[in-house]
Amino acid sequence: MSDKTANIGVVGLAVMGSNLARNLASREGNTVAVYNRSHDKTEHLVSTHPEAGFISTSTYEEFAASLSQPRTAIIMVKAGRGTDAVIEELVKVFEPGDIIVDGGNALFTDTIRREKAVRETGINFVGMGVSGGEEGALLGPSIMPGGSDESWVTLGPILKSIAAIAEGEPCVTHIGHDGAGHFVKMVHNGIEYADMQLIAEAYDLIRRGTNKSPAEIADVFAEWNGGELESYLIEITAEVLRQVDADTNKPLVDIILDQAGAKGTGAWTVQTALDLGVPVSGIAEATFARSLSSHAEQRAVSRDLPGPAQALTVDDADSFIEDVRLALFASKIVAYSQGFDEIRAGASAYGWNIDLGAVSKIWRGGCIIRAQFLNRIADAYRDAVELPVLLTAPYFVEALGRAQDAWRRIVSISAAAGLPAPAFSSSLAYYDGLRAERLPAALIQGQRDFFGAHTYKRIDKEGTFHTLWSGDRTEIEAEDTH
Amino acid sequence: MSDKTANIGVVGLAVMGSNLARNLASREGNTVAVYNRSHDKTEHLVSTHPEAGFISTSTYEEFAASLSQPRTAIIMVKAGRGTDAVIEELVKVFEPGDIIVDGGNALFTDTIRREKAVRETGINFVGMGVSGGEEGALLGPSIMPGGSDESWVTLGPILKSIAAIAEGEPCVTHIGHDGAGHFVKMVHNGIEYADMQLIAEAYDLIRRGTNKSPAEIADVFAEWNGGELESYLIEITAEVLRQVDADTNKPLVDIILDQAGAKGTGAWTVQTALDLGVPVSGIAEATFARSLSSHAEQRAVSRDLPGPAQALTVDDADSFIEDVRLALFASKIVAYSQGFDEIRAGASAYGWNIDLGAVSKIWRGGCIIRAQFLNRIADAYRDAVELPVLLTAPYFVEALGRAQDAWRRIVSISAAAGLPAPAFSSSLAYYDGLRAERLPAALIQGQRDFFGAHTYKRIDKEGTFHTLWSGDRTEIEAEDTH
Repeated sequence: MSDKTANIGVVGLAVMGSNLARNLASREGNTVAVYNRSHDKTEHLVSTHPEAGFISTSTYEEFAASLSQPRTAIIMVKAGRGTDAVIEELVKVFEPGDIIVDGGNALFTDTIRREKAVRETGINFVGMGVSGGEEGALLGPSIMPGGSDESWVTLGPILKSIAAIAEGEPCVTHIGHDGAGHFVKMVHNGIEYADMQLIAEAYDLIRRGTNKSPAEIADVFAEWNGGELESYLIEITAEVLRQVDADTNKPLVDIILDQAGAKGTGAWTVQTALDLGVPVSGIAEATFARSLSSHAEQRAVSRDLPGPAQALTVDDADSFIEDVRLALFASKIVAYSQGFDEIRAGASAYGWNIDLGAVSKIWRGGCIIRAQFLNRIADAYRDAVELPVLLTAPYFVEALGRAQDAWRRIVSISAAAGLPAPAFSSSLAYYDGLRAERLPAALIQGQRDFFGAHTYKRIDKEGTFHTLWSGDRTEIEAEDTH
Repeated sequence: MSDKTANIGVVGLAVMGSNLARNLASREGNTVAVYNRSHDKTEHLVSTHPEAGFISTSTYEEFAASLSQPRTAIIMVKAGRGTDAVIEELVKVFEPGDIIVDGGNALFTDTIRREKAVRETGINFVGMGVSGGEEGALLGPSIMPGGSDESWVTLGPILKSIAAIAEGEPCVTHIGHDGAGHFVKMVHNGIEYADMQLIAEAYDLIRRGTNKSPAEIADVFAEWNGGELESYLIEITAEVLRQVDADTNKPLVDIILDQAGAKGTGAWTVQTALDLGVPVSGIAEATFARSLSSHAEQRAVSRDLPGPAQALTVDDADSFIEDVRLALFASKIVAYSQGFDEIRAGASAYGWNIDLGAVSKIWRGGCIIRAQFLNRIADAYRDAVELPVLLTAPYFVEALGRAQDAWRRIVSISAAAGLPAPAFSSSLAYYDGLRAERLPAALIQGQRDFFGAHTYKRIDKEGTFHTLWSGDRTEIEAEDTH
């Protein structure tokens, strides 16, 4: 064991942990202690990166002893029981005031449970979302820490030193207490699902509508990346579409099996939104589109289902592509609006004081959904902190007004031509539902009252009512069994 | 205490429990013991229904003593901790071989947990879904029991005596072990959400497209109820639309506040489907449409969002209404197909041997989604037990082929006219996704490989691959981190 003292430690040295440790070590003022269950991995990291000046430790006691107080350790292990096991060991060797950070991909309710348990020992527990993948971890991720204000005092400067920088500002902020960080990271991933599905639908429509090659469509995306759609996902879409498979000399996108995988954070986002009563239909459709794509057997028996007689025909490719761009932009606004709606509802349900503008700013760099566009979200929440629906901010209203005709054309064309555009069409239906003066939900309430005596409210007076449907059909005041 | 012996008991005498007890007592051969925590309610039920010949009991001991063996008791209390409390009491006074039935609205995972715990005492525990509301409980519900084969021997004849009868057959079958009954009941409710939302969209389109009054649209639904859409929900829609508010002399549907309530089973269905990887997008959109409608503040600030310049204009009302009918029918087929897909996936995940045709048959009477149509589902599973996608059965393929042009027109028109039709459009997008030869999921896999090294599969050879995107962009074989 070294006689140096570390100001930060990392437990768990798989790729994400190793890269985060190297990132930490590369910043002025940090000395990093490292620990891994199998010590080989620790030795390998330390020996292959002598420039990092790591303190190698082989037991939890040694790890704790190597850290200055308050001891601060970031756990980077696969989310689940492994996380609980490491926490249990750290709690034994840490002291009140020390800080245990879980940088894994935990479900926020697990983080709330862990924070509550660890807090009883006097030790701080911080659930921290980290976005940006392996490269982000090494070079600068977007970081979403929860946990106590006390822990942020120590952790803040360290995290600021390793985070991505966007327009001069580090992509990290103290999101809120206990599970707030992992909650916001979850929603980030949900928005990412929607964004990717929307891009996929845009690509598919252009391909089928214009017969352009993937390389030509790469040029379209590259051009879009110079405008209001500028973002990492648009940028890498161009890269992926341009890639040629060496084996076949065909576009790689035509060689990749069209079955999308998922790691579960999209599903979590939707499941949580259902608990909160927040309609995140774009994220749901994106998640379902991936699961649909992966059901190979079902797709195989469904190929011959009847389709429209006429395939998509496009007269003017350029104006069609511009329509698709606007449909993508409008749908993307909906996806983000739904995601921020979920964060707002989560903050209210769990008592977190979340600065939505600050969240949008730390997503400008390091993470997967990084985009210029996020500055406009920050503006919206700066101008109206309590904004009930993000897409009603002036910038977005202008954009939606400009985009909506094209958006409607694209959804109509897709339906007519038999091209699946679940996220485009769902986003538009959400938009039209939100702005509807009157919804047919009134009929649903009438049906519910008819078959289940669920009661209804009236537009013209207070109270809760029930019609005696199986009786004389008069209306009575009723208890609210809504 | 009476010296009669009961063959069945009911615990919990709120409306559902009282009605189920009265239903049981009205059938030849049944003697029913009743128990309620506050004895007043028991006395009230017994004294107001002398014809039932109830055995009134005031303690769990007395309740158990009044039952012949194997003792069989149906718990009808509000789902949650109350259920656990009653089970705890019954386990104390029952013996191995006896049967405890939970007829409440439990989440199937709670039922699995309870069944496992009760089984250790040698007592049978049956989670039982009951559909049909208060009236169904009294006159004949659709009943979905899970639990052991042993319990079904005793319970089967009793349940058959009280269930709704559809075309001569009682609407009850042994669904499968442990939580299977409550699972299937949950999906029933999810389908009900979709069905109601689709009807609401159909009504809204006809209203806005043709300017017909609710009473005139009631006639349309009444007519539809004579054809392939024949179902309880279509029937009561006509009733609700025809109802005139006595206070205002206006159609009641225009007086009911357009904010739909929900009791959570729609959300459960979607959350479970997300765990199982089953795309139930129609049910999800229906659930989200209800939550959107109930966000009054958000809707208030969104009313002025830009909409299309032109409202919906319909030249030929009759052919438009026929288009809507076909769109409704096609979307309904999708909703049921998605629901049965979820049951199939649930059965596979939880090891239940569920006869999907039998499930469709017991939904023909007693429950909310009862419909002629369910015979066609039974036919489909009779002809192909392992059918991977319900809507690929010949009857549905024919119907979809006949409906799809109209369906596409309706989705296109809704999008163009700014009328929200989330369930119509989502169902169509699912349909077109399912039958697509090739989906843009391949691009999503490319993006995931680019930013997260998530790897991909190829269409032309086995294995899992990764492109070195930040390196020389050659492809390597990789471990599957899908």
